Amino acid sequence: MTSQTQPGRLLKAPENFIDPDGVRRVFAEAKEGRRDFIRGAFAAAAAGVAATAARAADAPADGDPNILNLPEYSRALGQGVAQNNGYGVPSKYEANVRRRISPGLTQTTQASVAFAPLQSLFGIVTPSGLHFERHHQGWWDMDPTKHRLMINGLVKTPMVFTMDDIMRLPSVSRFHFVECGANSAMEWGNVAVPTVQYTHGMLSCSEFTGVPLIKVLEMAGADTKKGRFLLAEGADGSGQSRTIPMELVESGEVLLAYGQNGEMLRPEQGYPLRLVVPGVQGVSWIKYLRRIKVGDMPFGAKDETVGYADLMPDGQHRQYTSIQECKSVVTTPSGGQVLLEKGFHPITGLAWSGRGKIQRVDVSVDGGRSWRPARLQGPVMSKCLTRFNFDWVWDGKPTIIQSRAIDETGYVQPTKPQLAAVRGTRGIYHNNAIQSWLVQENGEVKNVHVS
Amino acid sequence: MTSQTQPGRLLKAPENFIDPDGVRRVFAEAKEGRRDFIRGAFAAAAAGVAATAARAADAPADGDPNILNLPEYSRALGQGVAQNNGYGVPSKYEANVRRRISPGLTQTTQASVAFAPLQSLFGIVTPSGLHFERHHQGWWDMDPTKHRLMINGLVKTPMVFTMDDIMRLPSVSRFHFVECGANSAMEWGNVAVPTVQYTHGMLSCSEFTGVPLIKVLEMAGADTKKGRFLLAEGADGSGQSRTIPMELVESGEVLLAYGQNGEMLRPEQGYPLRLVVPGVQGVSWIKYLRRIKVGDMPFGAKDETVGYADLMPDGQHRQYTSIQECKSVVTTPSGGQVLLEKGFHPITGLAWSGRGKIQRVDVSVDGGRSWRPARLQGPVMSKCLTRFNFDWVWDGKPTIIQSRAIDETGYVQPTKPQLAAVRGTRGIYHNNAIQSWLVQENGEVKNVHVS
Repeated sequence: MTSQTQPGRLLKAPENFIDPDGVRRVFAEAKEGRRDFIRGAFAAAAAGVAATAARAADAPADGDPNILNLPEYSRALGQGVAQNNGYGVPSKYEANVRRRISPGLTQTTQASVAFAPLQSLFGIVTPSGLHFERHHQGWWDMDPTKHRLMINGLVKTPMVFTMDDIMRLPSVSRFHFVECGANSAMEWGNVAVPTVQYTHGMLSCSEFTGVPLIKVLEMAGADTKKGRFLLAEGADGSGQSRTIPMELVESGEVLLAYGQNGEMLRPEQGYPLRLVVPGVQGVSWIKYLRRIKVGDMPFGAKDETVGYADLMPDGQHRQYTSIQECKSVVTTPSGGQVLLEKGFHPITGLAWSGRGKIQRVDVSVDGGRSWRPARLQGPVMSKCLTRFNFDWVWDGKPTIIQSRAIDETGYVQPTKPQLAAVRGTRGIYHNNAIQSWLVQENGEVKNVHVS
Repeated sequence: MTSQTQPGRLLKAPENFIDPDGVRRVFAEAKEGRRDFIRGAFAAAAAGVAATAARAADAPADGDPNILNLPEYSRALGQGVAQNNGYGVPSKYEANVRRRISPGLTQTTQASVAFAPLQSLFGIVTPSGLHFERHHQGWWDMDPTKHRLMINGLVKTPMVFTMDDIMRLPSVSRFHFVECGANSAMEWGNVAVPTVQYTHGMLSCSEFTGVPLIKVLEMAGADTKKGRFLLAEGADGSGQSRTIPMELVESGEVLLAYGQNGEMLRPEQGYPLRLVVPGVQGVSWIKYLRRIKVGDMPFGAKDETVGYADLMPDGQHRQYTSIQECKSVVTTPSGGQVLLEKGFHPITGLAWSGRGKIQRVDVSVDGGRSWRPARLQGPVMSKCLTRFNFDWVWDGKPTIIQSRAIDETGYVQPTKPQLAAVRGTRGIYHNNAIQSWLVQENGEVKNVHVS
C-alpha cells in the first residue's frame, strides 16, 4: 500500500488535512481492524476497542486529544438536527450565490428585477430561494385563507374558489422554465453587460404543481366556442393582467399552480396561486392570481399593448408575441469568470424552447467557425430547461465560446446579426440570439457582441 | 355578464375580497377599456387615464383612497426584490411545514433524525430546506477550500483532490431518492406512529450533480479486477464509513456529488462533497466524503456490521443488505389529517424502488380487498421518487386506504404480514411493507396495522 504523500496528478497543498504520519497510522489500524471486523459484530466491537487503545498508546505525551492533527469537525460533536426552526439554509461559504439587482436598471426595488445566479447553478432545478424576481409593484406575503380566485365572463356559472377548494381538485406536477420576455434585453444594443447573471438571469426552472385551468373552466361551464381568450388578473397592487389564448388552456398545459419545487409557491413567485403558462413569457404567469375572465377577443391589457410589445425595424409594435423561442447560453465559462490555467475545462450551459423539447445543442469554441454537438443531460422535457455539457481543452489562446440550440420543431437559435435582420436592434423583448463569451489570453472571460 | 355575487358551486364567504359594487364598476370600466385598448398603444394609454378618472369620480366623499374596499396588497406598494440578502424564504403562513424531530426517539439532537414533512410536499423534488436529516455525530459547515478527497488502496497512483479539482471534471446531473435504511422502523413493532412525517419521513428526492466516481478511480488507476470493494469515509466526527461494491460504481451511477437541487449541497447533507449511491440506503451516501479506498473484500465498518444489519427471525443478522426495495406510501390523506366532509378527495402519494423505475402503483380504498391503478406523474425516473394520484369519492364510512407499488423488475411491495413471514418483526431496517391509513367516520385519519 502506498502512502498518500506520493503526489497524485492533481495534488495541491492539503491545508488542515490529516498529516502523513497520522494517515499511515490510520492505514495500519484500518487494515488490522478490517481483518477482524469481518468476523462479525462482536469481533468488530472488540477490534474497535483495540484500535482505540492503539491510538491512545500513540498519543503525544502532553495529552493533546487531537492526536492525528484532525480538524475540529473530525473529532467533535457537530450541530443538531432541525436547526433554524426546521428549515435549512445554504452554507455560509455560499453567501455569494444569490439573486442580484442591477444597480441603476430600475428606480425602485419594487418595480424591479433580481437576477438568478446562473453561473453558480447546476442541473435544471432552480432553488426557490434563487429563482429570479420580476415585480411590477413589489411582492406580498398574502394570507392564503383569505385569497380567492374568481372565474367569470363567458361562463354559465361564475364561481369563486378558496385555496382549499383548488387544492382539493386533482392535480398534476410538471417541470417548466419561466423566462421574462425582457431577458437579455440589454444585448439588443451596444451594452454588453458583464455576467450571465445579468444577461440571462431572468430565467428559472421549477417543478410546478397545480390544477389544469381547463378543469376549472369546465366546472364553470365556460363557452369555449365564443370565449377564445382569457384575462388572467393578479391581486397585487400592479393589477397585472394578461390575455391568454384559450387554445393554450385547452392543451391542458396551463396550470393554476400552488406548488413549486415540492412546497408552496414562494411569496415572490405569487403565493398562494400563480398561473403557469408553459413556454410563454413570465409576464403571463400571473402571480397572486385572483381572476380568470373568459372573453371573445384579446383584452388589450397594459402589459400587452404599451409594454411587452416588440418594436420592429419599421417602427411598428408587434403585440401578443408571447412564446419564448428556442434559446441557449453557456453558463461556465461565462463573463466575469477567470480560467486560471490552460488545459481541460468543462463547458456547461442551459437550453430551452417555448415550442417543446430541445433536440440538440451545438457548441463552438472558435467564434462560430465550427460547431460540435454537446451532451444533453436527461431528462429532456418539453418547455423545460435542458442542461448541456461539452468537454474542452483550452490551448491558452484567446477565443470565443458560443452555444446554439435546436428545438424539436427544427427551429435553430439565430446569431445576433440574423435576429437583427428581422427584428432590428431597438427592441426590448424576446432576444434569443446566440451569446458570445470571449476568453482572453489572461483567462478572463467577457461578454462580446460579434457581428 | 353575470356578477360574481351569484354563488358558484364552491362559493365560500369571500372575506377581504373585493365587494360586489366594486366588482361591477371594474367590470364596466374593463369592458370600456378593452374596446379602446384594442386600437393600439396610444389609445390604450388614453383609455387607462379615462378609467382612472372614472374611478376617481366614484370615490367616496370622505376621500377614502380605498374606493373598492381592496385589501392593502391590491392598492399599495409591496416589498422590493432581493430581500434577505438575495436568498428567498417560504411564506410566513407555511411555518408549520418543517422538518421535525420525534421527541424521545434519540437522546441527543446530534445523533438523531429530523423527518421531512411528506404530508405537505408536492411532486417529487424535496426542497433542500426540508430534506430529512440523519446525523451520527451532528453536522458541520466545512470550509470547501480546505476539504480534500483522497483516493487510495488498490490504485496505481493515490491521489488527493481539492473541490476545485473535482468541480473541473465532467459532471452529470440526475434525480434520485435517498431513504434511510431505518425509515418506517417503528412499524415493525406494535407502535403505530401518528403521521406520515414520522412513518416515512426519512425519505427525500433531489437532482444531484457530480462526477461519476468511476472516472476518478480510472484517473488513479484503480485495480478493478482485484479491487471489488470500496470504502467510503466521511470527514465528520462520526467517522462514518461504508463498503460500496465496485459493480455499483462501474455502472456509472455512483457520484461524487457537490450539487443538490441546483445549488451546492446543504451542510446537513454533507457539504461540500457527498457520495450518491442511487437505490442504496442513505447511510452509504457518505457525507463530507474525504476518502475512497479500493480493497479486495468488504471492509466490515461499524455501520454495516453492528448497525444497519437486519435481525432475521432465526436470530441471525443479515449484513450488507443495502438496496432499498420497492415501496410506496399515501401522503394524503394520511395520519393526523382530517377529512372535513364526504365527497371527492384526491389521494396522492409517492412510490420508489432501489432496483429501477416504478412500473405501476395500485391503490385500495377498502382495506386491500380491491385495487385500482393510480395515475403515475411523469417523468418516471430510475431510483427516483414517482408521484401518483388517484381520484376518490368518500362515502363518509370508515375505510382503510393503502398503496402498493410494483417496480420494473416485477417486484410487488409486500403487505405487512407477507414481509413479517420472511423477516420477522424484531428488525429495525428495510421495512417496505404496505402502509395502511384508517379513515374514521369523523374524518380523522390514523395509522393502523392490519393483519
